[in-house]
Amino acid sequence: MTTYAYLGPEGTFTQMALDAWAPARGAEHRPCGSVDQALTLLRAGEVDGAMVPIENSVEGGVSATLDALASGDPLVVVAEVLVPITFVLAARPGMPLGQVRAVGTHSHAWAQVRGWMESNLPDAVYVPTLSTAAAAEGLAAQGGSPAYDAAVCAPVAASNHGLEILAEGIGDNAAAVTRFVLVARPGDLPERTGADKTTLVLFQRDDHAGGLLELLEQFSVRGINMSRLESRPTKESMGSYCFSIDIEGHVLDERVGEALLGLKRVCADVRFLGSYPAAHGTAVQVSPVTTDAAFADARAWLRDLRTLT
Amino acid sequence: MTTYAYLGPEGTFTQMALDAWAPARGAEHRPCGSVDQALTLLRAGEVDGAMVPIENSVEGGVSATLDALASGDPLVVVAEVLVPITFVLAARPGMPLGQVRAVGTHSHAWAQVRGWMESNLPDAVYVPTLSTAAAAEGLAAQGGSPAYDAAVCAPVAASNHGLEILAEGIGDNAAAVTRFVLVARPGDLPERTGADKTTLVLFQRDDHAGGLLELLEQFSVRGINMSRLESRPTKESMGSYCFSIDIEGHVLDERVGEALLGLKRVCADVRFLGSYPAAHGTAVQVSPVTTDAAFADARAWLRDLRTLT
Amino acid sequence: MTTYAYLGPEGTFTQMALDAWAPARGAEHRPCGSVDQALTLLRAGEVDGAMVPIENSVEGGVSATLDALASGDPLVVVAEVLVPITFVLAARPGMPLGQVRAVGTHSHAWAQVRGWMESNLPDAVYVPTLSTAAAAEGLAAQGGSPAYDAAVCAPVAASNHGLEILAEGIGDNAAAVTRFVLVARPGDLPERTGADKTTLVLFQRDDHAGGLLELLEQFSVRGINMSRLESRPTKESMGSYCFSIDIEGHVLDERVGEALLGLKRVCADVRFLGSYPAAHGTAVQVSPVTTDAAFADARAWLRDLRTLT
Amino acid sequence: MTTYAYLGPEGTFTQMALDAWAPARGAEHRPCGSVDQALTLLRAGEVDGAMVPIENSVEGGVSATLDALASGDPLVVVAEVLVPITFVLAARPGMPLGQVRAVGTHSHAWAQVRGWMESNLPDAVYVPTLSTAAAAEGLAAQGGSPAYDAAVCAPVAASNHGLEILAEGIGDNAAAVTRFVLVARPGDLPERTGADKTTLVLFQRDDHAGGLLELLEQFSVRGINMSRLESRPTKESMGSYCFSIDIEGHVLDERVGEALLGLKRVCADVRFLGSYPAAHGTAVQVSPVTTDAAFADARAWLRDLRTLT
Repeated sequence: MTTYAYLGPEGTFTQMALDAWAPARGAEHRPCGSVDQALTLLRAGEVDGAMVPIENSVEGGVSATLDALASGDPLVVVAEVLVPITFVLAARPGMPLGQVRAVGTHSHAWAQVRGWMESNLPDAVYVPTLSTAAAAEGLAAQGGSPAYDAAVCAPVAASNHGLEILAEGIGDNAAAVTRFVLVARPGDLPERTGADKTTLVLFQRDDHAGGLLELLEQFSVRGINMSRLESRPTKESMGSYCFSIDIEGHVLDERVGEALLGLKRVCADVRFLGSYPAAHGTAVQVSPVTTDAAFADARAWLRDLRTLT
Repeated sequence: MTTYAYLGPEGTFTQMALDAWAPARGAEHRPCGSVDQALTLLRAGEVDGAMVPIENSVEGGVSATLDALASGDPLVVVAEVLVPITFVLAARPGMPLGQVRAVGTHSHAWAQVRGWMESNLPDAVYVPTLSTAAAAEGLAAQGGSPAYDAAVCAPVAASNHGLEILAEGIGDNAAAVTRFVLVARPGDLPERTGADKTTLVLFQRDDHAGGLLELLEQFSVRGINMSRLESRPTKESMGSYCFSIDIEGHVLDERVGEALLGLKRVCADVRFLGSYPAAHGTAVQVSPVTTDAAFADARAWLRDLRTLT
Repeated sequence: MTTYAYLGPEGTFTQMALDAWAPARGAEHRPCGSVDQALTLLRAGEVDGAMVPIENSVEGGVSATLDALASGDPLVVVAEVLVPITFVLAARPGMPLGQVRAVGTHSHAWAQVRGWMESNLPDAVYVPTLSTAAAAEGLAAQGGSPAYDAAVCAPVAASNHGLEILAEGIGDNAAAVTRFVLVARPGDLPERTGADKTTLVLFQRDDHAGGLLELLEQFSVRGINMSRLESRPTKESMGSYCFSIDIEGHVLDERVGEALLGLKRVCADVRFLGSYPAAHGTAVQVSPVTTDAAFADARAWLRDLRTLT
Repeated sequence: MTTYAYLGPEGTFTQMALDAWAPARGAEHRPCGSVDQALTLLRAGEVDGAMVPIENSVEGGVSATLDALASGDPLVVVAEVLVPITFVLAARPGMPLGQVRAVGTHSHAWAQVRGWMESNLPDAVYVPTLSTAAAAEGLAAQGGSPAYDAAVCAPVAASNHGLEILAEGIGDNAAAVTRFVLVARPGDLPERTGADKTTLVLFQRDDHAGGLLELLEQFSVRGINMSRLESRPTKESMGSYCFSIDIEGHVLDERVGEALLGLKRVCADVRFLGSYPAAHGTAVQVSPVTTDAAFADARAWLRDLRTLT
């Protein structure tokens, strides 16, 4: 049976992402305690895919995921899922809002509800937990003296654990969204849809001035748009970075292929992390001079030049 | 009396950074529970400066600091301090390593000791705490049934709280360094030393293709090197970013001034976060064509052209 | 009395350009045998200006003018005039077209009527003359055995010398235009009109790869369009070039001034050949981010940054 | 028998170039009255190649050649020859220098001896001729009243026609060199030597700002140096140009091929004018990231990515 790992426990936003991904219906869903654990199971062949968070519209990139994908045995992204992030404040039945002294949740969630907390529970102490779902689970499981009185979590986590909702929609940014990716071992490439993304990690040959500019020119000269750029430390020394990048287009697109050739030549290393349909589904705008047809025409012309006679 | 806030409690690496910064000697040091709290005190005028972490050579940028500096009332960096990061595993006296079942520490520290933990305590459960020092403090303060058996923290935090060292140097990367910045309200600019950095946050006018390339060209055309680039979400929508950037040079350098003029014109907003001596102390290499003298010569020539007769 | 030199003799297209330039009305017009001679008189102070051809829409740049302006005592362009080029074939009265065996004209004119000649006088021999007007003059002046039977010249030259028109509009390109410039000694700059051009000669510091690209970036980064680029040999060695360039805008425009500062720094030499109203009169399209107002705003902002307190 | 056309008559520098080109030895050499005529014979199949001047180190590009190659049936350059240019002043035997009142020569030659003339024959009148050799020929052929008293020509032209040398080495620039190209109908490509050049004519899709910059980036992003750039009018309207360009490398080089593909896509038209050994014989410096091997490695890597499984 097909099995997918995800960043658990049950009731996390990651589970919601996996539930929302059609191909996972009917498959086994296995919660993991960390992104690393999920990807370790995947690399070991114990699961067939792993759903992990990669970026939040408010908090930014998820370092654990970015770094785990950038090293170790190759993995590729085969799909992405966007999940709107809605936080509730949940407590054991009977706990009034006015008596909440300590609040448990994941640090990223805490960062997204700080405004609400300052306005409504200015004196509440923050207690970090491993995930938002773990905060809910911990509250339900605890005995007479819990470490916190309420949890910030997804609505589903609150209901899973029989908690009462003290407040809904407490995120400071109503439009907050998290982007999740379904990661797999390298295999068949997802088909081209015309609305694709390609994810790469670029390691510069040396950290010379203008180095990033040179890499970005490999895209611009082929008319390729970049939709995400994160710099991550290579962990070798302060100031040494690699770049995690999403571009518009599929590795099978001619313009993307040529850009990859260019990057492969000028970078110390290029890690290909997959081509997959963009969740937004909007077709990539391609200039007439960078379509596959334009490349094919140019290639035919060059072939003739090279075989004059 | 001069007072400096820092990300506490006592025993954090941030305190070590503040202790290492000469001008803070003899001043009052006030620990804060979060970067936000430290900067709020600073903005309110209750402290004269705040030492906060901005980047770790292994874990990358510190989002809370980057975001807090990028919005709200203006603050500027006036100094930077590099602190080598050394982790110990500490426990209450008498606890043997073999009996450690749960380990408490800050999530960033946990990320940096995962390798050691997998080799030495593969079954240990991770318990998140607000800081590494809080992990040590919590262990010392707890009663008969602590939530964790050992803390990952700085050596000084262990000794502050009378804990015993079970293992030293447990960081996966022996060369790990964290960069801290001393933040102040806008006032006198630090003097030029020839080995300066300038920190900026750039907000693009729109997210058009090639937008970042255009910004970076403002530096390259004036021969300015970039030593750090972080993209951060503007929190408005998925895929909308601002860029937190360190460049080599001081705002009083002609080439930096002209680059800032260019950025101010083409960006929706440019936030100046200070010019200050680089901790490494190595003089910036300036091409003969971008020295202040080269600018002065060119300006004199242009002035003549414009007043021909 | 004000005196203007021009590339003569009477009846040249250059004289037509000078006649078309309003400020020259009522002034003395002095024909010269060559561009060099006209500019020598100007440099010597014997005339107040000189009208010379700089570019033809069919034949390209006029080397003699480009080179004479690029070296020697400084001169500046203060106006430009466009003259449509219309050629006639003229002969002494009584000469039928069918008996024309040899045709005299300037080599540039000959190049522009080759198509007509091949169709109508395929066997005619070409006899070079110093100018189109000289061809007409020579025909009129000659005795019994002229070196050629017909001249290619401007209609006015034919009528000046009492020649008969054998054919009109014989240029291969009906839209042919020559651009003339009125050159003066450096003095008051022409006022800004919003539809200005600036002419420059750029000498590279060394002929390294990508050198021209770097120069062009000085324009593009300030949103400046280039309307003409000619490479000319520096005469030092094969492969060593300077660049004669027209850009849109006036040296008093902030964006042009800053580009000139940049070029002055990175080039071995920059020769300023004037800012003057474009003959086409169409206002330069300036992006909102490169207007003088945008520069002024940015400068005020930078001034504040540099004097924080 | 193999026949080569050249810009004649006998005694021109072009003949010297053809004589210097080893493959032409033993072949028939046919003088032509103009570059156009030579290329017309070549296009018609009446000759097997044509030697024509393309660039002089003092006077710049030869417009007639550049334009004739840029339009009409395709031709390609298969070799280049550099000829040092040495001018003599020659006259009929018995004519003393002091009695020279008029000097005949081609206008390009006249431009290169103006300095000598101003110093030595300041009052001499210039009489244009079709070529330097024609000036010598005309002097020898004339009857009692020649149009000029002395000719500026190559030493060989003077001796061919029995003229006396009045002065040697009268060129203003002792290092003057003219570059000639041997043009042929498209056929077998010259083999790669590692010291090759490729000549192109680029027609922009539209004359938008930054257009030339975009074309040059197609070279720079593949590490290709440009050794010559001439803008030429397209003859359609004032301000509409095409670019005649020489780059280092052979069309069979991977980096050159990819740059050509890029240009073909973004230009309205690209005219390939041949790849051939550079006369200087110095091997092209190729960065390790743009060698054929680097391209082959990158291609193998991309092929694997595209066929994951």
